[in-house]
Amino acid sequence: MIPRYSRPEMTKIWDPENRFRIWFEIEAHACDALAELGVIPKEAAAEIWAKGKWEVDRIDEIERETKHDVIAFLTNLAEHVGPSARFVHQGMTSSDVLDTCLAVQLKQAADLLLEDLDRLLKALEKRAFEHKLTPTIGRSHGIHAEPTTFGLKLASHYAAFARAKQRLVAARDDVATCAISGAVGTFANIDPRVEAHVARKMELKVEPVSTQVIPRDRHAMFFAVLGVIAGSIENLSIEVRHLQRSEVREAEEFFSPGQKGSSAMPHKRNPVLSENLTGLARVVRASVNPALENVALWHERDISHSSVERVFGPDATIALDFALNRLVGLVEKWIIYPENMQANLDRYSGLVHSQRVLLALTQAGMSREDSYQAVQRNAMKVWLEGKDFMTELKADGEVTKRLSTQQIEECFNLDYHFKHVDDIFQRVFGHS
Amino acid sequence: MIPRYSRPEMTKIWDPENRFRIWFEIEAHACDALAELGVIPKEAAAEIWAKGKWEVDRIDEIERETKHDVIAFLTNLAEHVGPSARFVHQGMTSSDVLDTCLAVQLKQAADLLLEDLDRLLKALEKRAFEHKLTPTIGRSHGIHAEPTTFGLKLASHYAAFARAKQRLVAARDDVATCAISGAVGTFANIDPRVEAHVARKMELKVEPVSTQVIPRDRHAMFFAVLGVIAGSIENLSIEVRHLQRSEVREAEEFFSPGQKGSSAMPHKRNPVLSENLTGLARVVRASVNPALENVALWHERDISHSSVERVFGPDATIALDFALNRLVGLVEKWIIYPENMQANLDRYSGLVHSQRVLLALTQAGMSREDSYQAVQRNAMKVWLEGKDFMTELKADGEVTKRLSTQQIEECFNLDYHFKHVDDIFQRVFGHS
Amino acid sequence: MIPRYSRPEMTKIWDPENRFRIWFEIEAHACDALAELGVIPKEAAAEIWAKGKWEVDRIDEIERETKHDVIAFLTNLAEHVGPSARFVHQGMTSSDVLDTCLAVQLKQAADLLLEDLDRLLKALEKRAFEHKLTPTIGRSHGIHAEPTTFGLKLASHYAAFARAKQRLVAARDDVATCAISGAVGTFANIDPRVEAHVARKMELKVEPVSTQVIPRDRHAMFFAVLGVIAGSIENLSIEVRHLQRSEVREAEEFFSPGQKGSSAMPHKRNPVLSENLTGLARVVRASVNPALENVALWHERDISHSSVERVFGPDATIALDFALNRLVGLVEKWIIYPENMQANLDRYSGLVHSQRVLLALTQAGMSREDSYQAVQRNAMKVWLEGKDFMTELKADGEVTKRLSTQQIEECFNLDYHFKHVDDIFQRVFGHS
Amino acid sequence: MIPRYSRPEMTKIWDPENRFRIWFEIEAHACDALAELGVIPKEAAAEIWAKGKWEVDRIDEIERETKHDVIAFLTNLAEHVGPSARFVHQGMTSSDVLDTCLAVQLKQAADLLLEDLDRLLKALEKRAFEHKLTPTIGRSHGIHAEPTTFGLKLASHYAAFARAKQRLVAARDDVATCAISGAVGTFANIDPRVEAHVARKMELKVEPVSTQVIPRDRHAMFFAVLGVIAGSIENLSIEVRHLQRSEVREAEEFFSPGQKGSSAMPHKRNPVLSENLTGLARVVRASVNPALENVALWHERDISHSSVERVFGPDATIALDFALNRLVGLVEKWIIYPENMQANLDRYSGLVHSQRVLLALTQAGMSREDSYQAVQRNAMKVWLEGKDFMTELKADGEVTKRLSTQQIEECFNLDYHFKHVDDIFQRVFGHS
Repeated sequence: MIPRYSRPEMTKIWDPENRFRIWFEIEAHACDALAELGVIPKEAAAEIWAKGKWEVDRIDEIERETKHDVIAFLTNLAEHVGPSARFVHQGMTSSDVLDTCLAVQLKQAADLLLEDLDRLLKALEKRAFEHKLTPTIGRSHGIHAEPTTFGLKLASHYAAFARAKQRLVAARDDVATCAISGAVGTFANIDPRVEAHVARKMELKVEPVSTQVIPRDRHAMFFAVLGVIAGSIENLSIEVRHLQRSEVREAEEFFSPGQKGSSAMPHKRNPVLSENLTGLARVVRASVNPALENVALWHERDISHSSVERVFGPDATIALDFALNRLVGLVEKWIIYPENMQANLDRYSGLVHSQRVLLALTQAGMSREDSYQAVQRNAMKVWLEGKDFMTELKADGEVTKRLSTQQIEECFNLDYHFKHVDDIFQRVFGHS
Repeated sequence: MIPRYSRPEMTKIWDPENRFRIWFEIEAHACDALAELGVIPKEAAAEIWAKGKWEVDRIDEIERETKHDVIAFLTNLAEHVGPSARFVHQGMTSSDVLDTCLAVQLKQAADLLLEDLDRLLKALEKRAFEHKLTPTIGRSHGIHAEPTTFGLKLASHYAAFARAKQRLVAARDDVATCAISGAVGTFANIDPRVEAHVARKMELKVEPVSTQVIPRDRHAMFFAVLGVIAGSIENLSIEVRHLQRSEVREAEEFFSPGQKGSSAMPHKRNPVLSENLTGLARVVRASVNPALENVALWHERDISHSSVERVFGPDATIALDFALNRLVGLVEKWIIYPENMQANLDRYSGLVHSQRVLLALTQAGMSREDSYQAVQRNAMKVWLEGKDFMTELKADGEVTKRLSTQQIEECFNLDYHFKHVDDIFQRVFGHS
Repeated sequence: MIPRYSRPEMTKIWDPENRFRIWFEIEAHACDALAELGVIPKEAAAEIWAKGKWEVDRIDEIERETKHDVIAFLTNLAEHVGPSARFVHQGMTSSDVLDTCLAVQLKQAADLLLEDLDRLLKALEKRAFEHKLTPTIGRSHGIHAEPTTFGLKLASHYAAFARAKQRLVAARDDVATCAISGAVGTFANIDPRVEAHVARKMELKVEPVSTQVIPRDRHAMFFAVLGVIAGSIENLSIEVRHLQRSEVREAEEFFSPGQKGSSAMPHKRNPVLSENLTGLARVVRASVNPALENVALWHERDISHSSVERVFGPDATIALDFALNRLVGLVEKWIIYPENMQANLDRYSGLVHSQRVLLALTQAGMSREDSYQAVQRNAMKVWLEGKDFMTELKADGEVTKRLSTQQIEECFNLDYHFKHVDDIFQRVFGHS
Repeated sequence: MIPRYSRPEMTKIWDPENRFRIWFEIEAHACDALAELGVIPKEAAAEIWAKGKWEVDRIDEIERETKHDVIAFLTNLAEHVGPSARFVHQGMTSSDVLDTCLAVQLKQAADLLLEDLDRLLKALEKRAFEHKLTPTIGRSHGIHAEPTTFGLKLASHYAAFARAKQRLVAARDDVATCAISGAVGTFANIDPRVEAHVARKMELKVEPVSTQVIPRDRHAMFFAVLGVIAGSIENLSIEVRHLQRSEVREAEEFFSPGQKGSSAMPHKRNPVLSENLTGLARVVRASVNPALENVALWHERDISHSSVERVFGPDATIALDFALNRLVGLVEKWIIYPENMQANLDRYSGLVHSQRVLLALTQAGMSREDSYQAVQRNAMKVWLEGKDFMTELKADGEVTKRLSTQQIEECFNLDYHFKHVDDIFQRVFGHS
């Protein structure tokens, strides 16, 4: 991933240094287990821990000849460990190291993403309670529907990211397995107890049955969950962008002093963060298809999945981490204009209360069909002729036959819509 | 989905008849709750259950005028229920019905898919035990690696589908929520207790916070899980196709009497089922991207998701149901040729035991690097000059300096590879 | 594709009747060529044309036994043609028929889509000229930028669909090839002149080298082009939806008498056509990935592509045809509100002329940086304090030091922006 | 893209240095045109060319404050150019620079990819002619079909990449447009002749109508074409992998001295290049969906496309360039084993001639159906009982009633299949 969309917290998980550190730990823990089982000398295992070192550049150099990264690492390690190095990797296959390492890295990445989600949830909760009862127009199809509160909007996004968290926890557990089972998964040359030991030490579960590799449906699931989270980021970003439209202006991304919105038009204040997040959602989702295609490997493995994972393992997690952090900042600093929300709400003279009038008419005995027509014909005059909704209703004989002036006016009460906000907050946040 | 890839068990879930039945139940249960709350007369609720009827054709006819399917349904319903029909749908919005209905349908679909998976698991388990100790060559990169058993291969696919089941159970729960919360999710015109009642009756959970719609990250997750399952189907299908290749011929799809493999070449016996499943996996996965794009709806909803779901709700579940059923049949009738497996295993004169020789040499004190070179140089003669591996080893002074003839021969023992098969079966199936 | 999104003009291309008709023509034309070459009797070829018939149901029946559709068709054909039927399909393989037929169908589909595009282009051109000089605000990032005309907006979409047409013509040519080359493409049992004859008769080009099948990169390209066209449909649909937002209301989809926007809210007028088109764009695009995965077939062919094409051949073309037609109607009937466009344009008191002021200041000798700051500080007061832009500029000493009152006022001239509209129309439409 | 899959030839196109060089050229050429039109002083234009300089680090520094990359560049440029810098970017908007620059970069990338394709075509042609008449078994469904030549296989891949080239030329032309049309594409503040001048100098076409940006269907088409090319790479890679399978071994990737196939199994020779290419095809294709989603921008532009292009502009072209180069090397050094091809061809005792026997029987007057059954029943004995095909035919009374021993034997002639190889080569390569 390009530096522009990367945070060091996530990139370092994918750095060679972290990878080789994990490789070493897997190999050294395996040696401990092998020593315990009497397969290799205990002194050898101790020596490996004591003398184990590696250099990224040297490994690269060896790999250019052997064209095999694990062999290059082992060769470099042997240069430091000396003769005892021949006990390293006994009965193991490269994928035992590579796949278990990837599991650790994806687990580390998931943990960081979970922290991101926690901060996002906290920011959303704070803003939701801040605007729990800030009236705003609810829109369906982009058209004014009925009043809601800005806090409810945020509660809805909070709930989406709470689900994201739950799914990511499940995906992390799904992908966090250890396989040290040898060339085709039979444990022919390595005792299953080695796997169990390494799994425990690396805080992974044991893979019940592996081939040469850990099955890739686990990884596909992981990337799919990242993709779904990206969808929820896009969803909130679209909301931010809509609310900042010049005709809406109910909220605005923070615009820092010195910032410039356009090289040509000095008046511009653009929602560039949320637009960027919309694009980053596409970037994260781009990993889903390749991950799904990676599942079908030939026989006990082919290596087609490897390049995909070398690219999208880092790219998808780094971009998502960056996006979540950008979103946290956006939410925290988001400038809300309640007065504009009210103004938009009032824009069509109470048209948004049409359902209440409809219900009042049906309660008063008119058929649903007739009520609908009565309300619709008056509502259309507001849209098309700029009339005032309440005035029109009061002048419609079919309506006044059923509803008194006071009954009509009661239909235009805003508070009516907010009576269950506490209930919903209670459901979402556990308190209200 | 085209009839060729459809089973009636799944298509009927998506038939108008089932949809309208669910709509009716939602509306009628809501009336019960409204009556209980005193919002509408209890007699009206009873009358709705008693007289409720509808005709698919009539609904279509009305929809052509109103351009709104729920209104068309309600209008048709009113034609049967009479005046009490005005109490139906009180305070609800179309999406309350549509989204809750979709939740029920996806749940029904998931239940059917879970049955499919159960049958597939049973078939795989049966064949796995049948061939628990049938020796076969394990392959990585398409190249002979080390011996394994055909039962282990199947155990690995069994485990994948067991995971599929677990994920589908989670996805079903994720998507099975009920929202009866009104036009923008505020419960302005409907008491949350109505939602709770309908949820209980329809065996769904209550959606904690909805807008006009149930949030689409739930559906995205659902389709993503179908996509991952499709990946595992493709994985097994590729195995079937590989094993049937003319040069491999270790297994063969059942070829029925009267079947013709080719219009031109009477000798053909093609793995058409597994090839078809490979394609169907692509078909199922095609729903994942649209579902991910569906998450980001405008404000309290836009209706862009609807056409996607009208197409892929049925298509993805029908195709997956068909594929799983086809796969069950394939696995059950799959013809296995153990003698060909053995022949392939023996094809390169024990080359597949190279790791054991390598380990024996390191155990005997040779460095890992030197051991590798000693084994590799003899192995290459097998590939390139058609030599016999064991003969070459016995003639290599570097090798014989470390290993006796007997020690070399011991490296070629097949049973050595199968000693942990029971352990793995125990892990996967809970018994061995 | 479900009937809701299908037009008979396109579905009939994919009906069994059309498919079998094409199969028959391919076989019969091939017989003519074979007869001309003396491979089969001329009377046989004539008899095949004369007696050739088939029944869809009977073919289905035979296929259930043979599990092979082309053989089923040939068997049914033989039931009508009698003994001469043995000369049909001589030296051909099923794919010769199937792939050449698919080429014909995709060509027919492309021709229909090209007609759709022509009507769309016509509708867009008409509306573009109608509103060539209707002022409207141009927006970048959803934020007011500078004035443009509604006609220019439409010209831009016109140009996109003109490109779509060009690309579809290329894709049609790419996919419209004929292969009658036998089981593995060697023409072992059939003379290449048969292929040439059939190609000419079916108005296709000869496939220079086929395996058993026509290479699938051709089809991938075709579906990719459909996907790009879907993108342009989505682009225009998003514009329609934005312009109809309650706060914008610059244009509105036609709302027919009797139409209902919502079951609950009688006041609703929703842009449901364009929302639907947004979703259908996702549906069409869903075919792109499977088509790309179809390219890599095993050796001289595997049949994994077939199910994908059986589903998405019809689905993508039917959905796109439906979408284009829906879009034509939308554009033709689209209600435009020029007065609202003007009102939105005037909403921020000339803020949208900030660049002209900036340029005037730099022309007057101020540095670009200083000019930018001078304009930006006054512009921000409009956004944040609701001030009048021109008034603020006239009160800013830094500005008035460089620009006279008249010069400032000249910067707010709307016509200034439209002086090149004719040029652009000339470029796009070839006239203005 | 990670260095492992990058070549400097392509990465340097995406380096900041190249980008800023292009930006500068666009701005400076625009100044020339503006000077020519008398909008700015000619000396200023000359000074800009003379003094124009920039530093990547300094630009980054300024961007951290302004959060706008073009403004940062212009500011840094002004630091070098001095007062005349205020004439730079007159009437232009950032996207005029950015989008025109992207067009140049994509054109440069396409040119490099076209060179790659040329080398690949050359390599494929050389190997195709080398093996023009090397007999090999053609396979459909992975099952032996009929004989073909290895040269024909390669001719088929050659033709696919020749089409790739054609499509890439078209996509390059599609994407190579210049837009210098101002903030919303009206040329309000800049004369269209500036655009024309810059286009000519940068070797681009003029964009007939732009908004703030060049329309993104052009870019979507470009990335789609890269995706289709990736499909053809995958197709050839799958062939390479299949031919190297241990049971097939008809060809093998070059295995360099010192190379190691596995850390555990010294005997391994894996087709790692083609496996890697299979994965890289997925990586390249990952850019297609995001590019398709990028088409639908809001109004005159939103910036959601930008992050996608910052990532996939480089990533897709770099990965594809790397893949094509890797593929060239693979093809050039690919080790072919004609004797193994012959052995596989002979494996099932002439079964692959079943169609010729079928045709001979129908020519001899037997019905197609009866002929099919006669051949099929003998063929099945070869598969299932290991019988010899010709022997069985000669012992089948139904067959011998129609065909003499000599006629049967003639059906097994290999040369029969190769009589049109020259014709096909002529079609594909223009010579044979």
